[in-house]
Amino acid sequence: MKSLKNDTYLRALLRQPTDYTPVWMMRQAGRYLPEYKATRAQAGDFMSLCRNAELACEVTLQPLRRFPLDAAILFSDILTIPDAMGLGLYFETGEGPRFERPVTCAADVARIGIPDPEGELGYVMNAVRTIRRELQGEVPLIGFSGSPWTLATYMVEGGSSKAFTKIKKMMYAEPQTLHALLDKLADSVTSYLNAQVAAGAQSLMIFDTWGGVLTPRDYNDFSLQYMAKIVDGLTREADGRRVPVTLFTKNGGQWLEAIAATGCDAVGLDWTINIADAKRRVGDKVALQGNMDPSMLYASPARIEQEVAGILEGFGHGPGHVFNLGHGIHLDVDPEHAGAFIESVHRLSRPYHAG
Amino acid sequence: MKSLKNDTYLRALLRQPTDYTPVWMMRQAGRYLPEYKATRAQAGDFMSLCRNAELACEVTLQPLRRFPLDAAILFSDILTIPDAMGLGLYFETGEGPRFERPVTCAADVARIGIPDPEGELGYVMNAVRTIRRELQGEVPLIGFSGSPWTLATYMVEGGSSKAFTKIKKMMYAEPQTLHALLDKLADSVTSYLNAQVAAGAQSLMIFDTWGGVLTPRDYNDFSLQYMAKIVDGLTREADGRRVPVTLFTKNGGQWLEAIAATGCDAVGLDWTINIADAKRRVGDKVALQGNMDPSMLYASPARIEQEVAGILEGFGHGPGHVFNLGHGIHLDVDPEHAGAFIESVHRLSRPYHAG
Repeated sequence: MKSLKNDTYLRALLRQPTDYTPVWMMRQAGRYLPEYKATRAQAGDFMSLCRNAELACEVTLQPLRRFPLDAAILFSDILTIPDAMGLGLYFETGEGPRFERPVTCAADVARIGIPDPEGELGYVMNAVRTIRRELQGEVPLIGFSGSPWTLATYMVEGGSSKAFTKIKKMMYAEPQTLHALLDKLADSVTSYLNAQVAAGAQSLMIFDTWGGVLTPRDYNDFSLQYMAKIVDGLTREADGRRVPVTLFTKNGGQWLEAIAATGCDAVGLDWTINIADAKRRVGDKVALQGNMDPSMLYASPARIEQEVAGILEGFGHGPGHVFNLGHGIHLDVDPEHAGAFIESVHRLSRPYHAG
Repeated sequence: MKSLKNDTYLRALLRQPTDYTPVWMMRQAGRYLPEYKATRAQAGDFMSLCRNAELACEVTLQPLRRFPLDAAILFSDILTIPDAMGLGLYFETGEGPRFERPVTCAADVARIGIPDPEGELGYVMNAVRTIRRELQGEVPLIGFSGSPWTLATYMVEGGSSKAFTKIKKMMYAEPQTLHALLDKLADSVTSYLNAQVAAGAQSLMIFDTWGGVLTPRDYNDFSLQYMAKIVDGLTREADGRRVPVTLFTKNGGQWLEAIAATGCDAVGLDWTINIADAKRRVGDKVALQGNMDPSMLYASPARIEQEVAGILEGFGHGPGHVFNLGHGIHLDVDPEHAGAFIESVHRLSRPYHAG
């Protein structure tokens, strides 16, 4: 393995000094880029793109050719694990992901096995290996998974949801069934992420997109404790370097302290929290990732720059900040605005790292 | 006017002693009740039900015949004001509300007038008068409106939204246009709510369903300041009693202190915050309304009772708590579970008000 040419992102996650604030964007490989749409069209459907290591590598690298991003993130789907569990993932146009065989009862949970990361999920590891090789040490590669709770919402609801009726019925009426499911998911995510590290991922992120629909107690019992279990079970070193772990719960701003206490290295913030307040609350315990409203990329480059300046000022001097959007980039953003965002972060952050 | 037989709800909002914790449910008149569905079928479409004072009164009173609720809430739509502004409200089956003529630019905003509450909105005031008369002083009547920001999201997006793309584009690119719209909405809501008080409403509530999608700064500038302006302009006394005002921002748990500082009497909580923490944060400044997860009504009556007990214990002894769900009741809840919830609140809360 070649040594890493730009390790700013990894250093920031470990709260080590850097020359500037590193930046990447959630969903940086995606539909706002015309070159992504072209590769996607070549692949056919979305899962075929994920399953093809060369094409998944190609879309992973596309944003890095356009922008001086400080990290690459594996291009894959959040629902690879439930798919590998045999639930029959498919995509309905305009409807998002669906499962042919949702989880409805204890017997369904009992039937589920832990997928083999080099078996049913081998296509993901092939993509990681290919991307890591093609990156040639330019920037670190982020591996990722959905959180057990977030995966379970899709598995029990049978797809996307607004009110989470089915999983909440299960949570309140049959909590032990849901815990059994979450336990299997935690084991699956742990082995999946460790395999990604073995295949070349240099940093890990867990996305808990739907933890924010829970009460504080239920968030702790049904989401956070399973993420903490995963963090405990992860390989934390590779190539002689620490592999940092970032946890991100959308709408989790109220629970930052608890998230920071799991043993993760960094906490992702959405845009509903002021980053200065977040830093005050978690202190030096973890690094912070975030947190510009993705919709700000609709504004002019001058307005974007102003917003970046405010967030940098909010975090203040010193290490421990990875700049990002507070959620994935919207599909109809002008790529030039994304470029202006990234350039602003690099340029305006230098004074905060001087001396 | 007859005197009020049960003023527990009003007293709790003013943090005055009561014998028990009063309870009502957001959307207590609605589709989970078979009698509602029957009346709705009689009326035809949803807006015809809202426009018919006798039928709107009938559905308002239906839950009170089933359950010993401590307040009635006007049955109406959240979008009556934009409809009266001439945007052409209609409902697409399964799609929610839509506007034929959304607000897209400064010229659209300039064309909008402040609706006359006894003119275009007279049907709402007729409903208030009818309900107040038919209530015969049993419990207080709550009047309500959507917040300016929440109404603006529907007006600019042209209906419901997930990413709020259009209004955020306007917010960042043309903030003065959005401020002009919000200013007109604040004036409209103020006159609308004052007319409801004149017609018989004894308490007021402002629903900010979508304030939680904003950054803390944008929440303050584009939502909260307009709610504060409304609170300043409201009639706060009627029939020789104070008319309490409750503000509710869904996903606004991070901003409780700011909401409590507007001059409102009470703050509504969704279920993502622990009510004990909320009470610690707002102290004696305001009463609190909330905050059971509406999905808890899917659980057994025993589990519901356990949850009610936990929330009552969280709030603790003394006045200032109006029990409610953290959002509207789901349409597929068993009415018997709603009954068990209400009964539990009444029974289990008495010890917290003794002595």
